[in-house]
Amino acid sequence: MEVSGATRLFPIIGDPVTHVESPVRLTRTLTEGGHDAVCIPVQVAEGHLGLVMAGLAVSGNVDGILVTMPHKRAAFGYCATSSERARMLGVVSVIRRNPDGTWHGDMLDGLAFVKAQVDHGARVEGARALLVGAGAAGAAIAIALLEAGVRELVVHDADASRVADLLRLLAGHGDGGVSSGPPDPRGCDLVFNASPLGMDDGDPLPVDAGFLGASMFVGDVISGHGATRFIVAARAAGCATADGADMVEAVQTLMADFMIGGQRPPATD
Amino acid sequence: MEVSGATRLFPIIGDPVTHVESPVRLTRTLTEGGHDAVCIPVQVAEGHLGLVMAGLAVSGNVDGILVTMPHKRAAFGYCATSSERARMLGVVSVIRRNPDGTWHGDMLDGLAFVKAQVDHGARVEGARALLVGAGAAGAAIAIALLEAGVRELVVHDADASRVADLLRLLAGHGDGGVSSGPPDPRGCDLVFNASPLGMDDGDPLPVDAGFLGASMFVGDVISGHGATRFIVAARAAGCATADGADMVEAVQTLMADFMIGGQRPPATD
Repeated sequence: MEVSGATRLFPIIGDPVTHVESPVRLTRTLTEGGHDAVCIPVQVAEGHLGLVMAGLAVSGNVDGILVTMPHKRAAFGYCATSSERARMLGVVSVIRRNPDGTWHGDMLDGLAFVKAQVDHGARVEGARALLVGAGAAGAAIAIALLEAGVRELVVHDADASRVADLLRLLAGHGDGGVSSGPPDPRGCDLVFNASPLGMDDGDPLPVDAGFLGASMFVGDVISGHGATRFIVAARAAGCATADGADMVEAVQTLMADFMIGGQRPPATD
Repeated sequence: MEVSGATRLFPIIGDPVTHVESPVRLTRTLTEGGHDAVCIPVQVAEGHLGLVMAGLAVSGNVDGILVTMPHKRAAFGYCATSSERARMLGVVSVIRRNPDGTWHGDMLDGLAFVKAQVDHGARVEGARALLVGAGAAGAAIAIALLEAGVRELVVHDADASRVADLLRLLAGHGDGGVSSGPPDPRGCDLVFNASPLGMDDGDPLPVDAGFLGASMFVGDVISGHGATRFIVAARAAGCATADGADMVEAVQTLMADFMIGGQRPPATD
């Protein structure tokens, strides 16, 4: 695509930004959809978010903003409106204009994780799911799983206080049951890693691979490292899988839909 | 070219911006020069320049800014350093980073006009030039002509007070003589229109075409309208010419050189 004076802008703000994939991938998705639009990287250090948000707010051809580390939490504060999931987490990953020019925020990471699983054959509605990792990624995924209709969600984290915090956050959200439990996949239909385990090759597996069975669908948030040892073990056990790269793929589609608004993610507010 | 996370940014700020050519042309020039860089349009209304400049200042991958209407005068105030010609005019058309991250401004429009003439065969050094139009464009061109070594510069404007202002501004700048005079090209080597005459087809010519001779080089700032009636008349009289499109072409080259800094316009400070 060629950027012209009429091209609409979708900055991605973060620090660092040199590695982010959205300038290439989101631009391609928008362009293929017939939109004259480009996603541009904008490197913004942590303390400078306010200055940049003020400038972008009055830049008339900026239609939306993608938010990545370290700004996802702070950027929430610049949104006049937001989705319920974004408010629950206090975090946004995407922002677009309201009709009055103010910003509307949403958090698509959990939704993208679930979409990646479904796109690869997982049945989420009515399922029993084990989720290892109750940090920021785990919380977003837990919300998305409940919104997608899991029957039961068992959460594990090496830090028990994180699990307690997440259970409090999820209380009353969706119809599925949520409980704390050990990282034991037996009896689960879905087995997900949302912990950092797998970032390093020497990490232990998030669950005991000996307990994986071919009826389980296994997903992992870790991306950028190829298939993790966890995904490799799951495939060896006969499980269908979706890996971190599949989640990155899914998030690009959801971001394009959110920005253009033609086919928005399910509203939760 | 494809914008990636590593691409460096050169916004052009103005209002409107949909018609500006730099996103296509400067991006092409920079890319052909081997730079991973893109010029992006940013639509900024007159009262919002300060907010946008503050945001761009802390955007780490913004290496330079192009300035167009209505911001050329106000943007000068955001430059910590500037060229002498920019300071004389109180106007900037291009801004790049100083080593300490502050902004350095320059005004390339006059320089681009002179470059277009030279590129098309004009001999400026030692020449006698008639300049019709003593507004913003005329002032920039007058400075550039003196810097390029004209022997004598005769300035005409329908508004005599503008000529007086320009003569005061030019006092002591360069070695050439500067005077006010009628729009009579006889005895001149260079005949330039920097007035708005020619924007409308019904406009009178800036000089009497009957006085044009084949030894004269004729240039016109009016662009976007094809060859003006003035340029057509000059060609009929046997003059070599450069038109507004040639100036736009020249400014793109100078902007790329300024931004990348490998081959900078002659320093005047």
